[in-house]
Amino acid sequence: MLNKKAVKAVIFDTFGTVVDWRSSIAREARAAAQSIGIEDFDGDSFADAWRAGYHPKMKEVRDGVRPWTTNDVLHRERLEDIVADFGLDALDEAARFDLNRAWHRLAPWPDSVPGISRLKNRYIVSTFSNGSFGLLVNLSKNAKIPWDGILCSDVFRAFKPARECYLGAIELLGGEPQSVMLCAAHNYDLSQGRKYGMQTAYVDRPLEYGPNKKTDLKAEQDWEIIATSIEQVADALDC
Amino acid sequence: MLNKKAVKAVIFDTFGTVVDWRSSIAREARAAAQSIGIEDFDGDSFADAWRAGYHPKMKEVRDGVRPWTTNDVLHRERLEDIVADFGLDALDEAARFDLNRAWHRLAPWPDSVPGISRLKNRYIVSTFSNGSFGLLVNLSKNAKIPWDGILCSDVFRAFKPARECYLGAIELLGGEPQSVMLCAAHNYDLSQGRKYGMQTAYVDRPLEYGPNKKTDLKAEQDWEIIATSIEQVADALDC
Repeated sequence: MLNKKAVKAVIFDTFGTVVDWRSSIAREARAAAQSIGIEDFDGDSFADAWRAGYHPKMKEVRDGVRPWTTNDVLHRERLEDIVADFGLDALDEAARFDLNRAWHRLAPWPDSVPGISRLKNRYIVSTFSNGSFGLLVNLSKNAKIPWDGILCSDVFRAFKPARECYLGAIELLGGEPQSVMLCAAHNYDLSQGRKYGMQTAYVDRPLEYGPNKKTDLKAEQDWEIIATSIEQVADALDC
Repeated sequence: MLNKKAVKAVIFDTFGTVVDWRSSIAREARAAAQSIGIEDFDGDSFADAWRAGYHPKMKEVRDGVRPWTTNDVLHRERLEDIVADFGLDALDEAARFDLNRAWHRLAPWPDSVPGISRLKNRYIVSTFSNGSFGLLVNLSKNAKIPWDGILCSDVFRAFKPARECYLGAIELLGGEPQSVMLCAAHNYDLSQGRKYGMQTAYVDRPLEYGPNKKTDLKAEQDWEIIATSIEQVADALDC
């Protein structure tokens, strides 16, 4: 049950919850393809294929199969994995580096900046993301998201849903689990946050995977807040 | 020699460089003393005594004499060390907790917010402080300092001048030492930053210890920028 009085900080999953990674990556990939003469490039499929490498690679780190690796490197590895399948072999090193940086330039959903700005008036607002620190800082500057802090995998040297992330965020924010509200579009993330005592806010993002979304089609638990935008989360918290 | 083109991020020592801890602590301590009937309280001496415990306690952590301990706890320990000497025994737990939180409410020097705001237009701006994450977030919200990120001891689980802090900041900001400019009022901090390849900006803060300042009376090396305010640092970086 929502305990508004206890909340001091609202922390946000970022990819999918705050920013629309799919449209942004598709757009930048189309531009990269065009730069080497490919006109009818399927940017959406490319974005989906790139993203498909995300969780498996983080899992290797979480499982200890490989040492700590920042997400910029995982993104780049996956790019190399798929570049030939999409006929992008002709992209040179500079172009590949720049395309990998598209993750630093993801565009927010329309309600994200207004909603976070309202919440910031009353609460600490921070990322809580598997992205790298530099990625999140660049993305946030670019999109003008006024975070009070950047909490992310690089800080915890762990990827969600590893418990180090949740416990680490609670510790850095003062040690009171109920004072932290986790806002995310993904049930697994909220479930883990709740397990460690955070309050939770689900934001429905039906277009995260375009027409292909198969998970997180709805709130799967009685999250403290269930909303269709971050502005609605701000409403629920009287901001 | 200043390499302006290389700079991507300007990171700031905070206590003394960005905020005037002494006046803020003296003011809040006077108010706490007044609340228990003490009228002629020497807030300045109290602030100096409190601060005097800062480096020795951090050194214990750096030297491995004690395990990692966040700065909020070190501040509170030192408060307990000196409370009797200053006749403040009558402060109850709630009042002591609140007084310890005075470190979360330190006021910036007049040039800090304008200077950092100008730098933010062109560079990543972040704290680089021995303060705790929560302290820096609260302080920055309170003072309206528009950081892009909070880099601090809690993130590195180490206190400056430990090398983990400098190398950690460089890593989180993308791995290029010259792309990071460290701004500080303390020569030891800049010296360590330079050792690991950062560019450096010295800001003179003659009033950090009131009339009692004994160290850092001037720039002791040819720092890339030598200034008397953060606005002057912004001038030097064409912001």
